[in-house]
Amino acid sequence: MKKPNIVILGAGYGGMMTAVNLQKSLGVNEAHVTLVNKHSYHYQTTWLHENAAGTLHHDRTRIKINEVLNSGKVNFVQDTVVSIHPEEKKVKMANGDIEYDYLVIGLGFEAETFGISGLKEHAFTISSINSARLIRQHIEYNFAKYNNEREKNQERLNIVVGGAGFTGIEFVGELANRVPELCKEYDIPREQVRIINVEAAPTALPGFDPALVEYAMNSLEAKGVEFKIGAMIKEVTPNSLVFEKDEQREEIPTNTVVWAAGVRGNSIVEASGFETMRGRVKVREDMRTNEYDDVFIVGDSALIINEETDRPYPPTAQIAIQQAENVAHNLKTLVRGGKDLEGFTPKIQGTVASLGHDDAIGVVGSKKLFGWSASVMKKVIDNRYLLKLGGFGLLMKKGKFNIFH
Amino acid sequence: MKKPNIVILGAGYGGMMTAVNLQKSLGVNEAHVTLVNKHSYHYQTTWLHENAAGTLHHDRTRIKINEVLNSGKVNFVQDTVVSIHPEEKKVKMANGDIEYDYLVIGLGFEAETFGISGLKEHAFTISSINSARLIRQHIEYNFAKYNNEREKNQERLNIVVGGAGFTGIEFVGELANRVPELCKEYDIPREQVRIINVEAAPTALPGFDPALVEYAMNSLEAKGVEFKIGAMIKEVTPNSLVFEKDEQREEIPTNTVVWAAGVRGNSIVEASGFETMRGRVKVREDMRTNEYDDVFIVGDSALIINEETDRPYPPTAQIAIQQAENVAHNLKTLVRGGKDLEGFTPKIQGTVASLGHDDAIGVVGSKKLFGWSASVMKKVIDNRYLLKLGGFGLLMKKGKFNIFH
Repeated sequence: MKKPNIVILGAGYGGMMTAVNLQKSLGVNEAHVTLVNKHSYHYQTTWLHENAAGTLHHDRTRIKINEVLNSGKVNFVQDTVVSIHPEEKKVKMANGDIEYDYLVIGLGFEAETFGISGLKEHAFTISSINSARLIRQHIEYNFAKYNNEREKNQERLNIVVGGAGFTGIEFVGELANRVPELCKEYDIPREQVRIINVEAAPTALPGFDPALVEYAMNSLEAKGVEFKIGAMIKEVTPNSLVFEKDEQREEIPTNTVVWAAGVRGNSIVEASGFETMRGRVKVREDMRTNEYDDVFIVGDSALIINEETDRPYPPTAQIAIQQAENVAHNLKTLVRGGKDLEGFTPKIQGTVASLGHDDAIGVVGSKKLFGWSASVMKKVIDNRYLLKLGGFGLLMKKGKFNIFH
Repeated sequence: MKKPNIVILGAGYGGMMTAVNLQKSLGVNEAHVTLVNKHSYHYQTTWLHENAAGTLHHDRTRIKINEVLNSGKVNFVQDTVVSIHPEEKKVKMANGDIEYDYLVIGLGFEAETFGISGLKEHAFTISSINSARLIRQHIEYNFAKYNNEREKNQERLNIVVGGAGFTGIEFVGELANRVPELCKEYDIPREQVRIINVEAAPTALPGFDPALVEYAMNSLEAKGVEFKIGAMIKEVTPNSLVFEKDEQREEIPTNTVVWAAGVRGNSIVEASGFETMRGRVKVREDMRTNEYDDVFIVGDSALIINEETDRPYPPTAQIAIQQAENVAHNLKTLVRGGKDLEGFTPKIQGTVASLGHDDAIGVVGSKKLFGWSASVMKKVIDNRYLLKLGGFGLLMKKGKFNIFH
């Protein structure tokens, strides 16, 4: 009997953990497992804002795929997915094609810019190691230039972050820690630098408990972050951002706009003919697409509805990691000839948003957490993932243990 | 009797050491000594190429003026010199005027671009802490952008240095050490990066012994530096450099041109009506100008002729430091009512050019030095200056002791 080919596209949280789970649970003789990814490394998307701010080096955030996967059990192909052809059970990559019996699509997210003028062209997004270290360098380059110009350009020192959701808040928290260091490095007075967070919704951190939101905003404002809440971004140019609040337009001179207010699924999935909503594929209970019994979707590419609220679950690492366990389990069942696939339900254990290196807010179970204890909890969550992904060795190498900073 | 006002313009090697020498030799009741400088710090111009390459942090290169000077003995004014009025014994600064009885001009150098098209607008110069850290960031920013663009731009990875004199050679030596680190940081293959040194003269390091020049070029070529010798730069644009060699024109795509091939005296001196050659004032034997008995010139602002060759001495730190001793001595004589000023003759003790962190070439006395021993000698020279400037404490704080790297 021919061994089935399982092909996993993308080494984000969902794809990577699917591969790791299959590596643990499937025997070498049961299936060929192949993981396809653009880079030779996996990275923790939820740490990228720290790399972008410059408070954590990106080598702490990325993990070489061949350090985690056993090449005897999972074949890793470094290539870029171009298109998926489910009718032909084939994936086109930049350097070749690959055929599958079972496919797992975990191609992650991309920025959703809602057609705001100039946003796509001029704003940065925190979406990869490459884009995160570019943001770090872009900010630093503007600081370095500031004192080299006779006419001082305030646009070099204004940093605008679009969106006060989870990522936006975590990013301005890191910036608030980083900016004083940059001021020292480039002889710039701290009060000259502005960190401005623009949010269209009527509150920061929509969905969080108001007491937590208030704590977060007070804490960040104390560190010099300015909030523009209920403010719609209207236009971004190479050196300005225009927003509208209370029917007033305001223009901020800035060379640095970081967009953290909207994501959608990777457009390759939509372009390959899957039915999507904002690029995400609505899946069956067992994480397969409605159209194809041999195609699973994990992570940000998958759309699942929270029945309590009748709205989609947000794309989070926590859910992607849980889905990967489910998908790996169901693949094992199919490979072994079973038919009884398991349904997936997220178990939201907790959500903690960092506000810089020693501060955070969050909910774990029914308990609200503030300040230092929340920031320790955040690191515990991050460390648990590393343990799950690569065991104790990886935890020791990449874990966050600086709880007393 | 009124105490005379001694005003020193510029805290480079010449001005700073004049102030330090006066602080040691003059009593508080003998004169008011004032040092005027744009920044609150002195810096070692001969280390700036390391800051520009990113191999040494600029805080190692700069020294806070108030850490070296005793404010009870020398008054430090942080201001920018606008113009000098020797007939009125007055100096105009951005924020006020200052009157003097004796003036010491040590305003340093600026780039001489010989009218080459686009050079002034688009090339960087290694001339200050601000310009050096901007070069470091400019190079790094281009590396960071490289992998963020779908179409790869080779101009981001080509670094062209104009001039294979002392500074040009030392800078490419540091770049050769730095580039592999940058390649690792930004996931760029080393062979993709070019470091190109363009020199118009028929040899690199003109004036050096041919055996030393050959050693230097071989050593640098082995580390991946390309030399274009006898090549005239014709034009610089934001993303290219054109040179002509053997009647052939060649264009190099590059965003980074660093000009290290020509200096002239600070143009403020010329604009203030002093008679200059390339911005440098030809001085009498006792370092005073021909026109004014109360104006001394030190460092790169001063032009003195080497009688053996009938050509000007090059502007070096070594000579500036020696001149400062002479000028301080003569000022002491004048303040005390003496008339018998001492003439100045440079004593060239040695010249060592670094080729990166553990390699160098040079001449000390009549002895040629190569490789590691030369690089140790270079650090000994640097450390001796720190000892002279600020004593043992400063040497310990800023000295170079990594001789076994």
